[in-house]
Amino acid sequence: MKNLTLKDIATALNISVTTVSKALKNYPDVSAKTKERVKAYAKKVNFTPNAHAAFLRTQESKLIGVVIPRLNHFFFSNVLRGIMKAAEEKDYMVIVLSSDETYELEKKQINRLLQQNVDGILLSIADSTHDTKHIDAIIEQKVPLIFFDKYSKLSNCSSIVINDQKAAFNAVEHLIKQGKKNIAHLRGPFLPQNSIDRFLGYRKALEHYGLAYKKEWVFTCNQISNEEGYAYTQEIIKKHPEIDAIFAVADMPAVGAIKCLNEHNIAIPDQIAVMGFSNWRISNLVTPTLSTVNQPGIEMGEKAFQMFYREYQLMKKNETVIFEKIEVDTEIIIRQST
Amino acid sequence: MKNLTLKDIATALNISVTTVSKALKNYPDVSAKTKERVKAYAKKVNFTPNAHAAFLRTQESKLIGVVIPRLNHFFFSNVLRGIMKAAEEKDYMVIVLSSDETYELEKKQINRLLQQNVDGILLSIADSTHDTKHIDAIIEQKVPLIFFDKYSKLSNCSSIVINDQKAAFNAVEHLIKQGKKNIAHLRGPFLPQNSIDRFLGYRKALEHYGLAYKKEWVFTCNQISNEEGYAYTQEIIKKHPEIDAIFAVADMPAVGAIKCLNEHNIAIPDQIAVMGFSNWRISNLVTPTLSTVNQPGIEMGEKAFQMFYREYQLMKKNETVIFEKIEVDTEIIIRQST
Repeated sequence: MKNLTLKDIATALNISVTTVSKALKNYPDVSAKTKERVKAYAKKVNFTPNAHAAFLRTQESKLIGVVIPRLNHFFFSNVLRGIMKAAEEKDYMVIVLSSDETYELEKKQINRLLQQNVDGILLSIADSTHDTKHIDAIIEQKVPLIFFDKYSKLSNCSSIVINDQKAAFNAVEHLIKQGKKNIAHLRGPFLPQNSIDRFLGYRKALEHYGLAYKKEWVFTCNQISNEEGYAYTQEIIKKHPEIDAIFAVADMPAVGAIKCLNEHNIAIPDQIAVMGFSNWRISNLVTPTLSTVNQPGIEMGEKAFQMFYREYQLMKKNETVIFEKIEVDTEIIIRQST
Repeated sequence: MKNLTLKDIATALNISVTTVSKALKNYPDVSAKTKERVKAYAKKVNFTPNAHAAFLRTQESKLIGVVIPRLNHFFFSNVLRGIMKAAEEKDYMVIVLSSDETYELEKKQINRLLQQNVDGILLSIADSTHDTKHIDAIIEQKVPLIFFDKYSKLSNCSSIVINDQKAAFNAVEHLIKQGKKNIAHLRGPFLPQNSIDRFLGYRKALEHYGLAYKKEWVFTCNQISNEEGYAYTQEIIKKHPEIDAIFAVADMPAVGAIKCLNEHNIAIPDQIAVMGFSNWRISNLVTPTLSTVNQPGIEMGEKAFQMFYREYQLMKKNETVIFEKIEVDTEIIIRQST
């Protein structure tokens, strides 16, 4: 388990530590013969450069921390994939931690990452996070922090998000252009900004096209689940026969709605059209296939890492960092359900 | 970005490094007053203990590396969640790397992890890995290595897997007990052991119940995709009207099969029953819902971490490690499609 150090190799070969280091890095000012000797020996003893010793020298850990609300979630998995891909290009590795959507765990995970001396933190804040002291601590320690997807308006740092309001506006606009007039909304809970923004986009679209907004056509899915979508659609069928379209905050409730409409033999989209949000794999597998909004998760992840990297380079040079607020574009995916 | 050290705090407060360290760890032999003074100062200067300095002292990084073939894959996401959960209990953090199912990337990721001095590596090998030198290097460096789900029979280390052959046997047995006699198999590619094992379980069940095995009833899904399941089911409908059940290597091809049967108005399960494997979320959302085999991903991840932890503790004490081969049990989930 114990790794040899550069010094051990230098002693064994009776050369200087600097020469060993340069030989392993292929510096031109070390002879080919010495390089070969050092490399052969390093291979023989299974030498791998010690990342921790390197950190003490450079103050760079080449590690970033990512805190996401949930791991087995299609969108976040994609963001993570994008982060990992971009990190790899800069020879970074990614420590992944989950907050399970809780404030307490998020706080703990951030402390652990700071203790590990990561070079930066990428964070999508938990729905239940209500104060930002733990986030301010990152900024105070001058560790670059990038919010992705879910952010706190109170914190002074860069962020990359979906313009949820605009995306929801476009989704509802699409339903209206299909001739739908009485559009219900299966909204998300009241805390994360993106569920508020999607609701606001829904309202704005109705307003913009002079359609009625009715409180009783809005249903709150606290779990953003398939089951809630199913149950509310049953309620819609029973109590609101005037509804001709459903716009859901995410694909899961939309899939529940489709299941319910299918079971009641209600024609989709002719009688009731259904629009989701997120473009999960499932949206293309249900019958009828679900129209939805595509969130470019991989792209968001890649950009989030690049934002960190840019800021980190500036901070290393003691240059001023101007924070960025990036919005990535979404697109409407039109399938059979509208 | 530069963290203060214990020594900086000791100098500032004019006490010993040991006292600072003990105070921060709440040791009983430091007075409450001193503890308070140290903690207040540590807080004021934003002190976080330096993980790298700690490593050089203890040779423990409190980091493990996980290399998975694909990140946005429901089963692996669950395994990862289990690993992260168990790691957290032992105050470990997890570096996650993907091999994208390629041998080259897997090799690179393992080298990066060894260079980072992780305390252990959890690996699910890529389908295309054809030689195990990079894996032997882990073992030679006395870094505990645990295989999960996909493993190499050639490597001498612990592993935790699903008994795929038995699971597939049980799945096909279930179809037979529903009265099905001509059972097709949408199998996986020829390289990963689990797709071979599922195929062998299928054959064994047919043999055990005295049913016909026909080569032309076996179709290879190289991508294990929805599209392949759809296409092969079209072929089955056209060329093999005798088929009364389909057992798929995974849920995705099974979902493709259901889609195809629905479009051809073939009654599921009466005319053709469909059985998947993996219990992805999708299996409960298609119409009819899909019977499948549940793979306990979270449990597998938790156990994999615990196996690493046990071996690591033994190795630290220079005690002999006896490798474990653990098989986790699967269960048949019966839904509408059978």
